[in-house]
Amino acid sequence: MGKIQDIKIVLLGAGNLATSLGIALQQAGFNVLQVYSRTQMAAETLAARLGATATHGLESLSADADVYLLALKDDALASVLPQVCRLNPHAVYAHTAGSVPMNVFEGLAKNYGVFYPLQTFSKQKPMDFASIPCLIEGANEFSEDVLLQIARALSHDVRLTTSADRRVVHLAAVFGCNFVNLCYSLANETLKRRGLDFELLLPLIDETAAKVHRLSPKEAQTGPAVRMDKAVMERQMSLIDDAEERRLYELMSEMIHKLANT
Amino acid sequence: MGKIQDIKIVLLGAGNLATSLGIALQQAGFNVLQVYSRTQMAAETLAARLGATATHGLESLSADADVYLLALKDDALASVLPQVCRLNPHAVYAHTAGSVPMNVFEGLAKNYGVFYPLQTFSKQKPMDFASIPCLIEGANEFSEDVLLQIARALSHDVRLTTSADRRVVHLAAVFGCNFVNLCYSLANETLKRRGLDFELLLPLIDETAAKVHRLSPKEAQTGPAVRMDKAVMERQMSLIDDAEERRLYELMSEMIHKLANT
Repeated sequence: MGKIQDIKIVLLGAGNLATSLGIALQQAGFNVLQVYSRTQMAAETLAARLGATATHGLESLSADADVYLLALKDDALASVLPQVCRLNPHAVYAHTAGSVPMNVFEGLAKNYGVFYPLQTFSKQKPMDFASIPCLIEGANEFSEDVLLQIARALSHDVRLTTSADRRVVHLAAVFGCNFVNLCYSLANETLKRRGLDFELLLPLIDETAAKVHRLSPKEAQTGPAVRMDKAVMERQMSLIDDAEERRLYELMSEMIHKLANT
Repeated sequence: MGKIQDIKIVLLGAGNLATSLGIALQQAGFNVLQVYSRTQMAAETLAARLGATATHGLESLSADADVYLLALKDDALASVLPQVCRLNPHAVYAHTAGSVPMNVFEGLAKNYGVFYPLQTFSKQKPMDFASIPCLIEGANEFSEDVLLQIARALSHDVRLTTSADRRVVHLAAVFGCNFVNLCYSLANETLKRRGLDFELLLPLIDETAAKVHRLSPKEAQTGPAVRMDKAVMERQMSLIDDAEERRLYELMSEMIHKLANT
């Protein structure tokens, strides 16, 4: 592809991921031409940070880019693909979704692929891309090379990954991030109901995450469910009013006990 | 109580918590006289690190200590209490359990309380106690003062907490640590089945924990369940063979969606 500053990129999306990705691209020296978002305000906010133009109309998308990165919600992605892929027959088109197979581009573009950064993003704090695993897939050698070049300019953990493997990684990410965060929420609600501070739990939360850097999660498991300490578990259940939460407590306790004994 | 080096402590237990606690006590300058464990080997291993004597017999426990710290499993605790509390009528007795009320000592000792360090412990890596919240409860002013003095010598986050509040904190800790770790396990199993590395998820796991330092867990929540993205959720469910794991996926997804909309 040549030099980084010669690679022109149009970024579709202005959400959490698009914001972090756009900032990382710009900092790495890529030429981000334009930001698209369904809402003009969101497009402008991100475009201003990147020195790019903003648009909320697909018909105003630049046809001049070498790469179109589609960091959109899965349902929005499907609806914009046909129009976007018509812009430039030589460009590379890539989406950033964990569970969308690469072949959504089939028949719509010649050069395409996937650029999936495995991280949870928030707009408030743009993530440093350097340590984010970037899972790359390309429909042909050219697409793969372009996407690898971009990924390697942002991150030192770049992996070629098939759609089938990426889907599994995305499921693991739902367990390791979204479901973990639900547990944080339930801890927070439990404390709040009694006027206690969530911040009390932060050292425990941090150590629980740190522990699985040096032990397998199975080795790291502690708590009443491992040893099926019925007395503690029943005392804890009696503190839970919500029926769903009780079902969750029982189900997770059973699963912890089973996993500990396999 | 006087100077730290004059406070003589007997430590009952040689497990994960007892090991970290013993090392922290010794480093803070306390005089750890003796370590008790049901197995002589475990008692000796920890005692050697602390320059203390070791015993596996309750009848050989020293009666010379000012403080007896019982860092035992909940069921072991109940069975040793009567004998231990008879040793020295002037001493302070404290257990370290989240869900055991202080009044288990009632009628057995005059001076007693609870010393609950809110953390997950492993023997491999003794925890630095400085940032561990220590929840203290005392049956009388003397007991409270002694336990506060010890806690403050180890940690800069010491809080007087009732048995009722501690029980709630312990439940929150099960959500925020034990159940979180189960999610890590399920992520690990998901990846392993396809020959993928758990280490791929560590940046995501770390950021998920880091995020709730600056956002509430509710604000931090991302993923397909927040927006009830049925297409992604069904694609993910189709990857799960285990019936319990599917139930968990459904239940947690529903709960995430509900919490996001309250």
